Amino acid sequence: MQFTSEDIQLLDGRFRRNLINSLHGAKSIGLVATIDSNGLSNLAIFSQIFHIGANPPLIGMLVRPDSVDRHTLHNIQSQGTYTIQHIKESYYKKAHQTSARYPKEVSEFQELGLNEAYIGDFPAPFLEDAELKIGLKLRSTQTLQENGTVLVIGEVVLIDVANGALSADGFIDPQILGTIAGGGLDAYYKLEKLSRLNYAKPNLPAQELSE
Amino acid sequence: MQFTSEDIQLLDGRFRRNLINSLHGAKSIGLVATIDSNGLSNLAIFSQIFHIGANPPLIGMLVRPDSVDRHTLHNIQSQGTYTIQHIKESYYKKAHQTSARYPKEVSEFQELGLNEAYIGDFPAPFLEDAELKIGLKLRSTQTLQENGTVLVIGEVVLIDVANGALSADGFIDPQILGTIAGGGLDAYYKLEKLSRLNYAKPNLPAQELSE
Repeated sequence: MQFTSEDIQLLDGRFRRNLINSLHGAKSIGLVATIDSNGLSNLAIFSQIFHIGANPPLIGMLVRPDSVDRHTLHNIQSQGTYTIQHIKESYYKKAHQTSARYPKEVSEFQELGLNEAYIGDFPAPFLEDAELKIGLKLRSTQTLQENGTVLVIGEVVLIDVANGALSADGFIDPQILGTIAGGGLDAYYKLEKLSRLNYAKPNLPAQELSE
Repeated sequence: MQFTSEDIQLLDGRFRRNLINSLHGAKSIGLVATIDSNGLSNLAIFSQIFHIGANPPLIGMLVRPDSVDRHTLHNIQSQGTYTIQHIKESYYKKAHQTSARYPKEVSEFQELGLNEAYIGDFPAPFLEDAELKIGLKLRSTQTLQENGTVLVIGEVVLIDVANGALSADGFIDPQILGTIAGGGLDAYYKLEKLSRLNYAKPNLPAQELSE
């Protein structure tokens, strides 16, 4: 089935949202945790999370202009720190539920029966159940002219990972962590590893790394 | 195992690249196809692809400052169009191999035995084997101050999807397409659907959509 630019414009809004949100395939999803100036925690699912660079270690995420995630953005901007955790099968329904429009005075941790954890003096909460905890310091925010989406760039300043998931060469295997991926606005997928491949060079066919 | 900001700075470069690239979990990967002013096609794997908005329909991707992908960026900027296709198990090793530093005068399509396809008068090539083909028109490029990475934003102007993968509500199921996800710099994962969940509302527990 084909859709031209004109077809896309004429689509029903819900159909278009599902179609365009699912277009680029598997999504990197995560639970972002923050705390406000009164000490109230917040937990929200994000599906637009991506690597920006390894040195300095930077992760980017997009915050929709009209979403409940604005509590998250407000906390990140006012406090300067936040955390990201992978989503596992055991709590993916609760993770999805964080996208409901809870009032500002409600902590999604408490509402959904998820436990906060703190590491050292890092101000933002982590999700206790997550086997990989990432602490970030805000580097910049900018609004994309195209549609008002906000690009948040954070520097990774703390990593806490279960030992068994960390390879000798630094690779963290999301399948070992039980990490799931997203699809569209509401679909969730388990991962099954095919392989890791060697560093690609011309005239050298791709080969599986032995582990 | 914990890493502080200081630990991360002191890591061996290869270990840090693997660690930080694998930190945020499953990656949305795709093959980006372009053509230059001489009609030479180019095909390159990207792992930083994300949804920006549904109306207008926008997809973003990041181009590393130092990578071979610069052929792709040059073609996008000079020609104004490009395509994205999902990566399937049947050609993921070839997709990985596109990251090798082939000379500018080599088409990865030809080098790797992958066929180009064209749709109507859309200028950029598609990958014939892909069951979802996305045609984009360049909207903007901007260089991120943090590390020189380039954010490319494109508008979706053409979608060609296998009928069986498109749900009645517009959702395209990546598992039906055989789409795989990435991890770190070199790992690849098949998807296995857990479920789609209902639109989240406070006081309404997350429920699986029947399909």
